[in-house]
Amino acid sequence: MLKGIAASSGVAIAKVYKLEQPEIVIEKKSASADAEIEKLQAALEQTKKDIEGIKERAAGKLAEEELAVFDAHLMMASDPELYSQMEAMIKNDQVNAEYAANEVANMMIGMFESMDNDYMRERAADVKDVTARLIAHLLGLHIPDLTAIDESVIVVAHDLTPSDTAQLNKAYTKGFATAIGGRTSHSAIMARSLEIPAVVGCAEVMETAKHGDMMILDAVEGEVILNPDPETIKKYEKKMEEVAAEKEALKVLKDAKSISKDGHQVELAGNIGTPNDVEGVLNNGGEGVGLYRTEFLYMNSDHFPTEDEQFEAYKTVLENMNGRKVVVRTLDIGGDKTLPYFTFPEEMNPFLGYRAIRLCLDRTDIFRTQLRALIRASVYGHLCIMFPMIATVKEFRDAKAIYNEEKANLIKEGVSVADNIEVGMMVEIPAAAVNADNFAKEADFFSIGTNDLIQYTMAADRMSEHVSYLYQPYNPSVLRLIKMTIDGAHKEGKWAGMCGEMAGEPYAAAILLGLGLDEFSMSATSILKARRMINSLNKKEMEAVAEKALSFATAEEVLDYIKKIVD
Amino acid sequence: MLKGIAASSGVAIAKVYKLEQPEIVIEKKSASADAEIEKLQAALEQTKKDIEGIKERAAGKLAEEELAVFDAHLMMASDPELYSQMEAMIKNDQVNAEYAANEVANMMIGMFESMDNDYMRERAADVKDVTARLIAHLLGLHIPDLTAIDESVIVVAHDLTPSDTAQLNKAYTKGFATAIGGRTSHSAIMARSLEIPAVVGCAEVMETAKHGDMMILDAVEGEVILNPDPETIKKYEKKMEEVAAEKEALKVLKDAKSISKDGHQVELAGNIGTPNDVEGVLNNGGEGVGLYRTEFLYMNSDHFPTEDEQFEAYKTVLENMNGRKVVVRTLDIGGDKTLPYFTFPEEMNPFLGYRAIRLCLDRTDIFRTQLRALIRASVYGHLCIMFPMIATVKEFRDAKAIYNEEKANLIKEGVSVADNIEVGMMVEIPAAAVNADNFAKEADFFSIGTNDLIQYTMAADRMSEHVSYLYQPYNPSVLRLIKMTIDGAHKEGKWAGMCGEMAGEPYAAAILLGLGLDEFSMSATSILKARRMINSLNKKEMEAVAEKALSFATAEEVLDYIKKIVD
Repeated sequence: MLKGIAASSGVAIAKVYKLEQPEIVIEKKSASADAEIEKLQAALEQTKKDIEGIKERAAGKLAEEELAVFDAHLMMASDPELYSQMEAMIKNDQVNAEYAANEVANMMIGMFESMDNDYMRERAADVKDVTARLIAHLLGLHIPDLTAIDESVIVVAHDLTPSDTAQLNKAYTKGFATAIGGRTSHSAIMARSLEIPAVVGCAEVMETAKHGDMMILDAVEGEVILNPDPETIKKYEKKMEEVAAEKEALKVLKDAKSISKDGHQVELAGNIGTPNDVEGVLNNGGEGVGLYRTEFLYMNSDHFPTEDEQFEAYKTVLENMNGRKVVVRTLDIGGDKTLPYFTFPEEMNPFLGYRAIRLCLDRTDIFRTQLRALIRASVYGHLCIMFPMIATVKEFRDAKAIYNEEKANLIKEGVSVADNIEVGMMVEIPAAAVNADNFAKEADFFSIGTNDLIQYTMAADRMSEHVSYLYQPYNPSVLRLIKMTIDGAHKEGKWAGMCGEMAGEPYAAAILLGLGLDEFSMSATSILKARRMINSLNKKEMEAVAEKALSFATAEEVLDYIKKIVD
Repeated sequence: MLKGIAASSGVAIAKVYKLEQPEIVIEKKSASADAEIEKLQAALEQTKKDIEGIKERAAGKLAEEELAVFDAHLMMASDPELYSQMEAMIKNDQVNAEYAANEVANMMIGMFESMDNDYMRERAADVKDVTARLIAHLLGLHIPDLTAIDESVIVVAHDLTPSDTAQLNKAYTKGFATAIGGRTSHSAIMARSLEIPAVVGCAEVMETAKHGDMMILDAVEGEVILNPDPETIKKYEKKMEEVAAEKEALKVLKDAKSISKDGHQVELAGNIGTPNDVEGVLNNGGEGVGLYRTEFLYMNSDHFPTEDEQFEAYKTVLENMNGRKVVVRTLDIGGDKTLPYFTFPEEMNPFLGYRAIRLCLDRTDIFRTQLRALIRASVYGHLCIMFPMIATVKEFRDAKAIYNEEKANLIKEGVSVADNIEVGMMVEIPAAAVNADNFAKEADFFSIGTNDLIQYTMAADRMSEHVSYLYQPYNPSVLRLIKMTIDGAHKEGKWAGMCGEMAGEPYAAAILLGLGLDEFSMSATSILKARRMINSLNKKEMEAVAEKALSFATAEEVLDYIKKIVD
């Protein structure tokens, strides 16, 4: 049994699908030519089949010119010259097929690469790709391909990149376990958005789990059990049923209000990364979208998305949310989030650097395009625009001024624009929380981003394991900054929300209700549980609880206290 | 005229001494052997003289075994084998001396390096060192050596490292100008500590200034003038006199109290890096040491300084301060400050990582050694121990517990320990400022580290030029955190100081006096000016000014207001 961090609740039992590039080691052996030639032919067939499968699954998802690369690979795999050279070497030198394949591949790659010609150098890449697959087949190695999964599996990986998670087939992927990451890492956020159980930060999982092993993934407790005995499987099948039953029971709350026992109503919203995620928010009773992370629109592209491309995405989300509030965060790029088509400056501490609104106020061309797309989409629903990483009132004013300019431009161009657009800001930098009363005079709303707010308040990188002990949502300093933010908003009659992971934590919800938070935005799968929690609490009581919590000196003391109250 | 940042006030007029390793390019030419051999002999003589000079100046500063390396270099430079091989090549091939020298050098280096023997590999390093110098002389290139400066100069460099500044001869170094750095960079801090005028962040100075050029360094305005005409020189000579006169005038305040017009007394202290800096603090009327940066003790060493080595340094400072308060900050290493003999973990954002107290609480062996040395030295004066980078009350408790253990151990060992040691903390992380009232229940004092506090409050790396606009000491958020810290301290009857650069800024001093700051610690050279400022202000009035300043929304508004009040 291995311990990790429960990143997306649930239980799964399935075979391990290991996402790991095989290490290829080739030995030269003498071998009977006939058997080796047979092996070579079989492996070539398998290689062609692989490529055809990849091409088929990619069709409709990729552009024509991107699909063309698979045709080039297929031609390469069917090239009689390639085959006959390998065959000749096996016959003449009486060597094993993988050795011959590797020698011929290297020779051809060298030849293509030495030609001073872009076209030929691309052919070298094709040979590399195709022969690597061929040699892996010859060696009987498993080449992972997430799109090819056609049975129930638990994906096991060092980490999952955005492009990995984009390839996951939800029908077959029952869960995943990664060696690194925490509750706020990309893979954890994606797991919750896909509603797939996940355990992250499970350090030994890559060394311990083998491809094809049976695995129990307990993403309630954050545990992984390998090759369990039948009794254990039975026990966890029961747990799966319980989890499913609880999920079912929560469904009665889907259309209920989020309202405390003494009648104080709040809004429970969902965080989304793409228009596809709206469905999950609605299915889980979300009353709005509290955070639309538009950076995925940029990260999953090979160019800055055009105004029209963005307009379509924003329009889709607004329409599908059907008049419910949609808070769209403008481009939050930089830090650990980069773009393949944009060069960020080299910085010693990218988390304290050129990112988000700082970049947008510098590269106003990028910013204006996004604002125009948003303003144009505003007529399709209730749009709230939110600027990330605001530290100073001057930055907010500058960003708002650009928004006003583009709005005026569009109106002049005859475009219709909604008159209920709200323009607010993330509160995720300590400076913003401490100065919230002044910000509230200019911003229509706040949304507290706890992941970054905690990171900066504690001066501790949430990605560094060496200071992970300082990631303390319940630290009184963090809670006090949250209180300053909410009080600042209310003083000016504005609303305050929260879109960090903290908004979905049951213990936090009690304190946040007491502090007067108006909107809680979280992973879609956390919404119904949060609603049950809110509906069970008394707002007046929680005010006293929050006040008491904020007087403690340490996070440990706060948690001890709040657990006694809520549990 | 070039613009830069005035980092250490004053004016200097002198020749440029350029600290830049020469770029060596060797061409093969045919040449007359006799002339080349003569050149070779002269350059060898000069090389020997250089090394003798370096050895002489290092004597007394380095240990015997460290001096021995110069003897090895001298032997190498006098080696008849080396000379005769070079001579033979010049004669036989009719080539220029630098070409022959380089060929022979490379051959010998290759030979020594190929021997599988540490001793021989060290010889290779010796040959490299000696022949590089020889070849530079042959090419007529200037090899910078700060210790060899024997006339008045202004040092011009890309940046100055701690070891560079340690070598500066204050008698001849009239100032320095660097291409990079800001007011809080190492070179700026050192310049103020050495009381040498300095302009930093003068981007073009390396390309523009040539070794030997005449330069005017105006470190009042942050300007550099190259090859000025006689009239300009005359003008700046007058400015030098004025600066000197003002400095003289300030001297009457040396033994004065730091007391507002309405009788509120504060303490003006100095920041030091080494025991040598105490003299400057006392000469400038410092009432104590508000920050002793002990990391230099570690950075200027090739091993973790032993308990006895540290004890000697702390004892010297305490004795020389003669009963005045000395605030010693425990090891603040990590971030941009590394050690040659310690491997820091690779982190994406070292400023948010494993450093200072975080490292000390993890490597308690290092921490205990320092605490023991400090506690042992306590009987020689008034010692205040201060922990850096405290984010949580638990960290403070943990650090204090280790201190208490070592204190008890020393008492048990029969060592005498002062009974007036104060144990406090830096407030440089937003979490500490926001939670100051709770910290004040456990810490004896606070010292606000504004450089880092601003950096974390604004989430902006103070070293990154891309976000330098966010380094805003007068931002209302920063001022409010300072107020929370001071109020928190006073609520529990503790004192609050400040040891960041902000404490020495005239505009800030007015606000800080109003907020009730008890101790202002700064570069020694800023103390008398700060005293004149404090003595000219009315505390009661400044309380109202500070309250008003804290109500503004932006740093610009605060500064506009405070300038009107103070100027």
